[in-house]
Amino acid sequence: MAIIKNKSPVLFFYNNSKKWLMNISKKESLHTHIGVLKHADAIGKEYGSRLMTNKDKYVYLLEPTMYDYIMKIQHGTQIVYPKDLGYIAARAGIQDGQKILEIGTGSGSMTSFVASIVKPRGHVYTFDVDENFMKIAEKNIRRSGVSKYVTQHNLDLKTSKDTPVTDMDVALIDLGDPWIVIPKVRQMLKGSGSIFAICPTMNQLEKLTMALVENEFTDIESTEHIIRTIEARDGKTRHSFQGIGHTTYLCFARKAFFGRKAKATTKAKATTKAKATTKAKATTKAKATTKAKATKKSTKN
Amino acid sequence: MAIIKNKSPVLFFYNNSKKWLMNISKKESLHTHIGVLKHADAIGKEYGSRLMTNKDKYVYLLEPTMYDYIMKIQHGTQIVYPKDLGYIAARAGIQDGQKILEIGTGSGSMTSFVASIVKPRGHVYTFDVDENFMKIAEKNIRRSGVSKYVTQHNLDLKTSKDTPVTDMDVALIDLGDPWIVIPKVRQMLKGSGSIFAICPTMNQLEKLTMALVENEFTDIESTEHIIRTIEARDGKTRHSFQGIGHTTYLCFARKAFFGRKAKATTKAKATTKAKATTKAKATTKAKATTKAKATKKSTKN
Amino acid sequence: MAIIKNKSPVLFFYNNSKKWLMNISKKESLHTHIGVLKHADAIGKEYGSRLMTNKDKYVYLLEPTMYDYIMKIQHGTQIVYPKDLGYIAARAGIQDGQKILEIGTGSGSMTSFVASIVKPRGHVYTFDVDENFMKIAEKNIRRSGVSKYVTQHNLDLKTSKDTPVTDMDVALIDLGDPWIVIPKVRQMLKGSGSIFAICPTMNQLEKLTMALVENEFTDIESTEHIIRTIEARDGKTRHSFQGIGHTTYLCFARKAFFGRKAKATTKAKATTKAKATTKAKATTKAKATTKAKATKKSTKN
Amino acid sequence: MAIIKNKSPVLFFYNNSKKWLMNISKKESLHTHIGVLKHADAIGKEYGSRLMTNKDKYVYLLEPTMYDYIMKIQHGTQIVYPKDLGYIAARAGIQDGQKILEIGTGSGSMTSFVASIVKPRGHVYTFDVDENFMKIAEKNIRRSGVSKYVTQHNLDLKTSKDTPVTDMDVALIDLGDPWIVIPKVRQMLKGSGSIFAICPTMNQLEKLTMALVENEFTDIESTEHIIRTIEARDGKTRHSFQGIGHTTYLCFARKAFFGRKAKATTKAKATTKAKATTKAKATTKAKATTKAKATKKSTKN
Repeated sequence: MAIIKNKSPVLFFYNNSKKWLMNISKKESLHTHIGVLKHADAIGKEYGSRLMTNKDKYVYLLEPTMYDYIMKIQHGTQIVYPKDLGYIAARAGIQDGQKILEIGTGSGSMTSFVASIVKPRGHVYTFDVDENFMKIAEKNIRRSGVSKYVTQHNLDLKTSKDTPVTDMDVALIDLGDPWIVIPKVRQMLKGSGSIFAICPTMNQLEKLTMALVENEFTDIESTEHIIRTIEARDGKTRHSFQGIGHTTYLCFARKAFFGRKAKATTKAKATTKAKATTKAKATTKAKATTKAKATKKSTKN
Repeated sequence: MAIIKNKSPVLFFYNNSKKWLMNISKKESLHTHIGVLKHADAIGKEYGSRLMTNKDKYVYLLEPTMYDYIMKIQHGTQIVYPKDLGYIAARAGIQDGQKILEIGTGSGSMTSFVASIVKPRGHVYTFDVDENFMKIAEKNIRRSGVSKYVTQHNLDLKTSKDTPVTDMDVALIDLGDPWIVIPKVRQMLKGSGSIFAICPTMNQLEKLTMALVENEFTDIESTEHIIRTIEARDGKTRHSFQGIGHTTYLCFARKAFFGRKAKATTKAKATTKAKATTKAKATTKAKATTKAKATKKSTKN
Repeated sequence: MAIIKNKSPVLFFYNNSKKWLMNISKKESLHTHIGVLKHADAIGKEYGSRLMTNKDKYVYLLEPTMYDYIMKIQHGTQIVYPKDLGYIAARAGIQDGQKILEIGTGSGSMTSFVASIVKPRGHVYTFDVDENFMKIAEKNIRRSGVSKYVTQHNLDLKTSKDTPVTDMDVALIDLGDPWIVIPKVRQMLKGSGSIFAICPTMNQLEKLTMALVENEFTDIESTEHIIRTIEARDGKTRHSFQGIGHTTYLCFARKAFFGRKAKATTKAKATTKAKATTKAKATTKAKATTKAKATKKSTKN
Repeated sequence: MAIIKNKSPVLFFYNNSKKWLMNISKKESLHTHIGVLKHADAIGKEYGSRLMTNKDKYVYLLEPTMYDYIMKIQHGTQIVYPKDLGYIAARAGIQDGQKILEIGTGSGSMTSFVASIVKPRGHVYTFDVDENFMKIAEKNIRRSGVSKYVTQHNLDLKTSKDTPVTDMDVALIDLGDPWIVIPKVRQMLKGSGSIFAICPTMNQLEKLTMALVENEFTDIESTEHIIRTIEARDGKTRHSFQGIGHTTYLCFARKAFFGRKAKATTKAKATTKAKATTKAKATTKAKATTKAKATKKSTKN
């Protein structure tokens, strides 16, 4: 039985649009439109209990899940939504032990989600070029409890000649022009490894698909995911009047070898790999070289 | 670099409707409409390579993912589809280390998927009443490589007075009448723990929702998930003419305490828990008692 | 070339959420957030021309279509949306010359739409019990220019023993409990005639379908219609972020004769028809008898 | 009460995928998988009655609607579906009395549908370049009973310098490259008149939208329409497992005057109109000049 203590994370849940995620701080209060709650009143309660505000509204004290952390990150930034994240995990078969490459850390929501699945034996290597965003992401990743399984790199893979990591199981790309990094991603992926790109527009899907074919990928699939909420009520069940619109399209593929230029590729790969592995380790240990500043998250990766 | 050997699992992939999942057996051949392939020719190749059939068709040798195992299970049985599984994982925040209760093992596809995420420190406890199905599920779970993280129980939780496991993080229900087990599931879930039910009909959503409210659950959400395939091609991008229809609706909720009958419940829970835990352990060790025959999968659970 | 005159109807169109439908009144001005326009400036312009507000925003002077009248009615009342109306017309094959029965006039939006299609040789007979709503509907029907083709009846067909009209081509039902009027509607429809019911909930579809089978209808079809807006822009084409949620489900069927109780029915029908026709005519002419107060719209129906 | 006679059109309806549309021919029989029916047995029956085949299956004798004619046309050709046709009618506000321009007659399904709505006082002017298709369309339009309200032109509006008709209320375009005819269509439309284009791909929407802006159209809207079938059954209501995929996207717009080059345009228009009107009349009367061969349908258009 999990009991809420001082500093415990709690999702104060009124309904799906009114919820607050925070750590209990015994001298603080939560002030909302539906009334005030003292954090202290939550201490000692079992997760799932509820408190009444001074405006007679019940608020539930839920134990935050990765979903709650992701939806919390949503405020103010563009995130990949759970409906899309879930399909990415299921379609690419992401699981414990895998090594994941992410290009475009953004706010860190996809990073956190994926890390929560590949842990404890897997790892996420995430790359971004915007230092401000990297700090936001670092904070978000830390809050969601998976820093240990994430290494942040400040490196532009569009232009870099380095290949900091290799033999990745899955590559996730969240860039405006994902097709540019495909040759690079190919070098970093294992054979038969999966790619998933976040493509908000149809034009991105189109250009990316052409780049994937050109770069010897197979099982290429573009999808979109529509979630519809249903209001199930006694004798009055129907879909919600409120619709949820477009978030993004997704493009999936798996690395193949067409054998067109087999020898050259094999050679190049071998070289790249040797170098890359060395570099990657160096990066991690040195914490931040000029070109590849890794914001290290843990001493154990 | 992963090389295919004798007995390696391989997905022979031609396209999304023509693909074959099997273990390499050096003396066998794969006979299909698109020609014949000798397994022996795959040995020594890197995953991702391709072979040509005697009808000049390329077939890719992919390393099977959990997705491939699930879609393989699909043939002949009703499965929960990746689009729905992914949302279940993302919405309930399923991750490494969690204990999952599953009622209705079916063909074992959801079991395998969830086990691949909660491993290595988590576990799936799955219950079914149909011994034939349990055997099919056991085989499917074994093939997908997660037996170690799954315990199968032959027990009818609709009628049983036992509570073989408790303190579950998430409960997954795939029954025709999920509302019947809600009081039982409640006893087995931790506070704030999540429930997900597979409900193919609107009527199930409706009855289940009423049972969830009655049994003090909160954050109740019914959804459906539509996946649309897009054919991204140079200058001719559009959705696929072929549509994907209804699979199932999903119902999510989290266990709360309304405090209505606080004392009685607390007491009952404590008692139940003590007994249940003892029982569960006994079950696992004894492998199969009369009432709760656990088909044990591993010596390490 | 249609020129705007004083009293001409004009849709002042800024964009799809900012548009105003009104008749030109030469001394008036239109005051909006995007600035002020003098009606007088529109006079003499061709439909399709644009004016600039005093805040430098262009507003187009469009000739209102039935769509614009329907969307105008939307403000403040629940309407049947064009996406649903269109399917009703196309599926039931509504066309010039047909006689339409409508039960539940509401705000008159469906009435107006259907009248615009069946005119000039067809007619809509619409029934409601709420006199206030009937007045609103009357106004809306008049504004959209189809009063001549509509007769409003103040009669409760759920309880009435009268059958004011018969031999209808299509019956449209917009009631909370549509199944109650099915036997009555059957009497009023021609053989093979179509029914369409507006059913916002799944439970209504379910009950109605059972009533339709019971009352010898065939080709029963329940559907829902999702419209998705696409933002087509150079190199950045995608669905709109803003989604459009549920409006209603639709239930369609066609009147058949199962021959179960052929003779009795035929006899009853004959009697009913004779009486009903007489009554209907009487009603129309007398304008308003006690039981069936017809709000007559025109001297020419 | 409509009685079936020899030569009456009848939809023999078993279910939505098994139905046959034909004219009664008293010596013929209908041979199907579900058995044989003699046409003669239908004669004298009321529409809506049912017959039993020699395999004990009930088949309903329905009076064909425009929907049935359109779905009949479907066999073997690409049609615009009722879900899309309905929206076109509702969004463009098509009604009795309007003059409709159609570019790309195809199999004549959209032509027939629209004609059934604008009749008896409106007319459809439809253009195609493929004489074989024109013959098929002519037959389909005749069968659906609206020939009188349709004039078919064999003229390529992409290249023609003629403007055979003007002052159209609505223009419907079903071409692979609709953007090419936009300047021409503009000349043929009245001010504030509507355009609807059938665009199966996103790329078409994108190019067309740019052409519409360039050519001074407003209220531009791209949509797609998803119809989902629901199986409403006692206690087991759900969406159909069978999905309906993509048919087409639709692009709507209304002709405006941006006033950019006001004088020149006005002059050009006036000239064009005069000429065009003359030409159009001539065409209709002469039946077939070299450049614009009009397949005339009636002496009354």
